[in-house]
Amino acid sequence: MAKSPEVEHPRKACGWAARDSSGILSPFKFSRRATGEKDVTFKILYCGICHSDLHMVKNEWGVSTYPLVPGHEIVGVVTEVGSKVHRFTVGDKVGVGCLVGACRSCNDCSNNLENYCPKSILTYGAVYHDGTTTYGGYSDIMVADEHFVIRIPDSLPLDAGAPLLCAGITVYSPLKFYGLDKPGLHVGVVGLGGLGHVAVKFAKAMGAKITVISTSPNKKTEALEHLGADSFLVSTDQGQIQAALGTLDGIIDTVSAVHPLPPLIGLLKSHGKLIMVGAPEKPLELPTSALLLGRKMVGGSCIGGLKETQEMIDFAAKHNITADIEVIPIDYVNTAMERLVKADVRYRFVIDIGNTLKSS
Amino acid sequence: MAKSPEVEHPRKACGWAARDSSGILSPFKFSRRATGEKDVTFKILYCGICHSDLHMVKNEWGVSTYPLVPGHEIVGVVTEVGSKVHRFTVGDKVGVGCLVGACRSCNDCSNNLENYCPKSILTYGAVYHDGTTTYGGYSDIMVADEHFVIRIPDSLPLDAGAPLLCAGITVYSPLKFYGLDKPGLHVGVVGLGGLGHVAVKFAKAMGAKITVISTSPNKKTEALEHLGADSFLVSTDQGQIQAALGTLDGIIDTVSAVHPLPPLIGLLKSHGKLIMVGAPEKPLELPTSALLLGRKMVGGSCIGGLKETQEMIDFAAKHNITADIEVIPIDYVNTAMERLVKADVRYRFVIDIGNTLKSS
Repeated sequence: MAKSPEVEHPRKACGWAARDSSGILSPFKFSRRATGEKDVTFKILYCGICHSDLHMVKNEWGVSTYPLVPGHEIVGVVTEVGSKVHRFTVGDKVGVGCLVGACRSCNDCSNNLENYCPKSILTYGAVYHDGTTTYGGYSDIMVADEHFVIRIPDSLPLDAGAPLLCAGITVYSPLKFYGLDKPGLHVGVVGLGGLGHVAVKFAKAMGAKITVISTSPNKKTEALEHLGADSFLVSTDQGQIQAALGTLDGIIDTVSAVHPLPPLIGLLKSHGKLIMVGAPEKPLELPTSALLLGRKMVGGSCIGGLKETQEMIDFAAKHNITADIEVIPIDYVNTAMERLVKADVRYRFVIDIGNTLKSS
Repeated sequence: MAKSPEVEHPRKACGWAARDSSGILSPFKFSRRATGEKDVTFKILYCGICHSDLHMVKNEWGVSTYPLVPGHEIVGVVTEVGSKVHRFTVGDKVGVGCLVGACRSCNDCSNNLENYCPKSILTYGAVYHDGTTTYGGYSDIMVADEHFVIRIPDSLPLDAGAPLLCAGITVYSPLKFYGLDKPGLHVGVVGLGGLGHVAVKFAKAMGAKITVISTSPNKKTEALEHLGADSFLVSTDQGQIQAALGTLDGIIDTVSAVHPLPPLIGLLKSHGKLIMVGAPEKPLELPTSALLLGRKMVGGSCIGGLKETQEMIDFAAKHNITADIEVIPIDYVNTAMERLVKADVRYRFVIDIGNTLKSS
């Protein structure tokens, strides 16, 4: 018979969990495994709130199991390492993103693309190799195989760096893979939220000219003056779109609501690429003739592999890229979720776990 | 005042033209320009009937002007060359495909991608540099700038080679551009018509394993035994599709009717590419989450540039690739169009212009 979360492992842990699809989070006692020979155990200091946490606590994707401890933008300081851990030692600043496991042998794993491994294990709400449920970073401690642990450079602030482990790699990986990282390209970013604002920063650091595309005219000042974008388009303004047709080499589309693709495809130059990193619940309408006439493409991308996540974090540290965050105490998390529904955050909530979560 | 087609140029020509959106073709006298210093003039021997000819004679894309002489799969023998023509001489076997002009100076033209030049001039139904209408290959003679003339190798039959000038390059170009030309890849071809059957032949010659995907179970024998495909899937058979999920590196989708993309995206491996070369009149439904989870993409492609068209023809000659054709006399052309509506041809009609069109 399965053990309860509180006693199935030897190490006591506590966090905040949703108990049902109301999504309401409350204190939760569970346990973490002992540090295995290849494991890194760390005290969690900060954890970002990703929009997918909101979907998951409310079971909006239909895959959630309860109790569910969300959080996959996790950073902290190493407290113990296993005997065969080579890359980390006690005191190191580290992070864990969306994944804590993969098969390590398939074609994608062999190519450092654990994120596309069919057997990849999500950081929370999944089943680990040992059959136990994975719990995320809205909690006090983390134990993870070192392969899935990222080193956080000293120059990167832990709080504002945490969201990069999901939001950062989600936009960095497609910029690289689809060749939008070449200096001098003109890159569009659709949606100025948690993903979009980080996409602007990465693309800018890669040397691109940036156009932010948003439904909200009131984000113009923010985009241009605060984030340093070069231009701003209101996606519903036909005149603005018409005037900018055929000007972009590529677009990172971060919007996860249903929205029209034709204006975006129109903004692309011939051979341009529209990359979706948000996943609207319903299919979008694709005008194929628009793809044909300019040999354009619509591609997808989903987070990134571990090697690339480390590369992204190192790039962020080098170029002083962090997320714009609002740091909150853990007992504000339900309010934060409500505000997230309304996109009322600029741009990412980060939970101050270290100072506000009562230890187990 | 504009001159009539019959007298605007010095060289008498005759062909078959549609006079209105009934699409009915009938004999038509017009004229061709004198051979300019960079022009190649040739006697037309064969012209393929492309499905787009059918759309154009009936003005189904809303861009047709009448009288309209269709035909952009044109081959023949050179009868005269201009003083500055270097690549051709009288007696050469040559062809003209979909284009007879482009700006020659834009970024795409500079990269041998005249097909994506915003000022490219279609072989028929367009306005040439001199302001006159372009007339296609359902006619006795052709005059074209040598840049837009393709050399037909002696080993390539003129009749069965003609359709390659549109159907061939339409599938060859994306196979190359999207990297589906590497030996050992597993490539799907959707639709076994004029484009699809040629796609099978090119992909096979490039060393791919081929799966033909069709709504018609009765095309299985043809696909496997005659065209040499390795496997065959009925696209509406859920069991067959399920069993083949995640097996294809890329797909060339030649279908121009509205059809579901999710099964095709499902057939792709991670990082696989679905390339559309047909243009359904209505938008297709795109499930973006399916693109994200496997970093898949949907791309378009439209014919090819002149340099690549020559490369394709030379490749076809080397690998004995021709279209499967039914040769018809010119006065059968209206019947052929009716049969084309019903997809009743295996796989391309080619008009025997040389022997059946009464000279002007």
